[in-house]
Amino acid sequence: MNQSVSPKRPIIAFMTDFGLGDGDVGVLKGVALGIVPDAQIIDITHDVAPQHVASGAWILAASYRYFPTETVYVCVVDPGVGSTRRPIAVHAGDWFFVGPDNGLFSYVLAEQPAHQAVLLSNPAYRLPEISSTFHGRDIFAPAAAHIARGVPLSELGPTIDPAMLDRLDISLTKREGAYILAHVLHVDHFGNLITSIPLSMVPHLFSSSLTELRFPEQRVTITERRHFFSENVEEAKDEQHPFIYGDSSGYVGVAIRNGSAARTIGVDYGTPVTLLVEEK
Amino acid sequence: MNQSVSPKRPIIAFMTDFGLGDGDVGVLKGVALGIVPDAQIIDITHDVAPQHVASGAWILAASYRYFPTETVYVCVVDPGVGSTRRPIAVHAGDWFFVGPDNGLFSYVLAEQPAHQAVLLSNPAYRLPEISSTFHGRDIFAPAAAHIARGVPLSELGPTIDPAMLDRLDISLTKREGAYILAHVLHVDHFGNLITSIPLSMVPHLFSSSLTELRFPEQRVTITERRHFFSENVEEAKDEQHPFIYGDSSGYVGVAIRNGSAARTIGVDYGTPVTLLVEEK
Amino acid sequence: MNQSVSPKRPIIAFMTDFGLGDGDVGVLKGVALGIVPDAQIIDITHDVAPQHVASGAWILAASYRYFPTETVYVCVVDPGVGSTRRPIAVHAGDWFFVGPDNGLFSYVLAEQPAHQAVLLSNPAYRLPEISSTFHGRDIFAPAAAHIARGVPLSELGPTIDPAMLDRLDISLTKREGAYILAHVLHVDHFGNLITSIPLSMVPHLFSSSLTELRFPEQRVTITERRHFFSENVEEAKDEQHPFIYGDSSGYVGVAIRNGSAARTIGVDYGTPVTLLVEEK
Repeated sequence: MNQSVSPKRPIIAFMTDFGLGDGDVGVLKGVALGIVPDAQIIDITHDVAPQHVASGAWILAASYRYFPTETVYVCVVDPGVGSTRRPIAVHAGDWFFVGPDNGLFSYVLAEQPAHQAVLLSNPAYRLPEISSTFHGRDIFAPAAAHIARGVPLSELGPTIDPAMLDRLDISLTKREGAYILAHVLHVDHFGNLITSIPLSMVPHLFSSSLTELRFPEQRVTITERRHFFSENVEEAKDEQHPFIYGDSSGYVGVAIRNGSAARTIGVDYGTPVTLLVEEK
Repeated sequence: MNQSVSPKRPIIAFMTDFGLGDGDVGVLKGVALGIVPDAQIIDITHDVAPQHVASGAWILAASYRYFPTETVYVCVVDPGVGSTRRPIAVHAGDWFFVGPDNGLFSYVLAEQPAHQAVLLSNPAYRLPEISSTFHGRDIFAPAAAHIARGVPLSELGPTIDPAMLDRLDISLTKREGAYILAHVLHVDHFGNLITSIPLSMVPHLFSSSLTELRFPEQRVTITERRHFFSENVEEAKDEQHPFIYGDSSGYVGVAIRNGSAARTIGVDYGTPVTLLVEEK
Repeated sequence: MNQSVSPKRPIIAFMTDFGLGDGDVGVLKGVALGIVPDAQIIDITHDVAPQHVASGAWILAASYRYFPTETVYVCVVDPGVGSTRRPIAVHAGDWFFVGPDNGLFSYVLAEQPAHQAVLLSNPAYRLPEISSTFHGRDIFAPAAAHIARGVPLSELGPTIDPAMLDRLDISLTKREGAYILAHVLHVDHFGNLITSIPLSMVPHLFSSSLTELRFPEQRVTITERRHFFSENVEEAKDEQHPFIYGDSSGYVGVAIRNGSAARTIGVDYGTPVTLLVEEK
């Protein structure tokens, strides 16, 4: 094996709530490969909670930064398919995003400069027939594939002012005195809870004399902090205690070693959480 | 990024009931890549209901048309593995299909001209050892990879008359007077029901003065029709009402917005359904 | 389609316990493609039982042999992430293995000559920031991608003596007189049980006058043997009887046709099992 520069191929990354049981995800890829046969086809996930736009938006936020520049994302969590919500493509930061204009790109738009946005209305870049329930196949996958092979966004349809794109209210995390009021953004595969509190908001999380994370509805207060999951395992009397950690997505998390914090605490998407970090 | 013609690579698309938990799907792909390193490897699904040939046949039917010509499909839903059922490859329409001769290709054979079918008996195109329980690895993946790299079907084994291939009875949908008698073909990820009634059989589905879809066993009758899931949402008194829609697969479907029609109505694969479309 | 030699591309095969719901698997691939854009990206599975190193080790054991030489495996089942367990890369047999030094490569190391092992400590081949909980993204995927593009192992960090790598006790299967004492290694997607008894240890499994497989804790004894799942189906009085078969992974298995042996017998990972094969 020789060390070599490998040729670049366009990347199309898919994120949907379709699940993997129906063949629909395969269809998206078949359509894309018909347009750009050489593409690298990558899945982010297809198990976004069904029609849960906020959850999809967050998963995309935690992922897109790690892909090469010029990756084209096809994102479909789309309860309004067939209605008046607009099919769009956005060039933001170093990447392209294709999907419904329903808030799915809220974090991306908050974090990256939006260079251009267009309405996907040009029939030349859609499948010949448009169903009313599967725009992923008929509109989004073809648009993404054409972008991946180098078609300029402006060919796909009229320009939209990026400031007018639909956005979720993702600024729900706020300080009130010594407290940060937030909520659960995501429950991961291991049952770890990711809160809406960016680690950058709490630089003293691990060094403060007192850090208290509370789930008021569950009447649960957590003070233990760990840098990694197996820290202090020898000393830990009760391994089922939840602890605070810094999630790799860049947010404050709550976990139980070898257990599910979500199940143990009884928490789900959107559950309110309060954090106190005393800096004295 | 320049607009460019991207080089064509052979596509191998996999559909099985193996699930994704065991490594078997990875093994299929490893075997294929050993034979055709440059292939595009795509998954249709690996979550076909275990050993449910009819369900696999339908998922393939809803998918294959959207892949580029010359795609080679490896389809394994194979309760008879190791018995006398034959391993086959079929060239039908613009595609190649590899798998057990057990009815999995029934829709394809009903919809596409079958140019050639062969028995996969040539040991030169199998793995050296053939297990009695994993023909996907030992016979089907190698055959598909050889076809993908251009080996003619006739090299893989003796010709079979396509008319003699095993077929499911997929003509279970029939008219009786004003009624169409059918059944549930598929329950999708959202709990939507796809019936065996092609949309082409009921051109007046949306325009007739009365359309009634009945699940006789469940004593449920549905009359509401929607073009897309969020239609009439303002007016809808009870969002949990099931409604009739045209599924993107080309069949009549039943859905509940933000709910599971399958669970609410209590319906599964094969449940009988009756449709009345009055055209006056 | 012309028969052709297809160009070789580096293969990176992923196995984790991350599940497919969080986007983390996509992130691994995005990171890898940023380093080696032309790679073939393949999944073995991402549904290893969470933090179950022994189960991951076995799935890898049943899979790696079927991939082309020089495939680079990224394997992450890593309860000790962030602790003192070492991140490693191993060149064993014809393949490269990247992951935590926690026993995940035990079967590989038992079956293949280990040519070289290194500690992944060179910051030039990691992401710039290392989190304490996601070494898959920050250390393993980058290392694997660099290996895939031809970087020699010795560049990635100091050499480790392969004899000092962590290994699970996988020699739990032993003879005691006429009996073989073993345990359940894996429960597959169909509910079939794979035991830790290699088929090579029991050449007379099918030809002996008496073969008895016992689950002592469940008080279940199985004597029926089948070469494939649908064998003897006509004669079988009770299709729900479990039977012994030779699993395609090379181990003795137990299955129920059209049913789950795991659920019916009440067996899980690690359940003890005893096999008697009388050769008279």
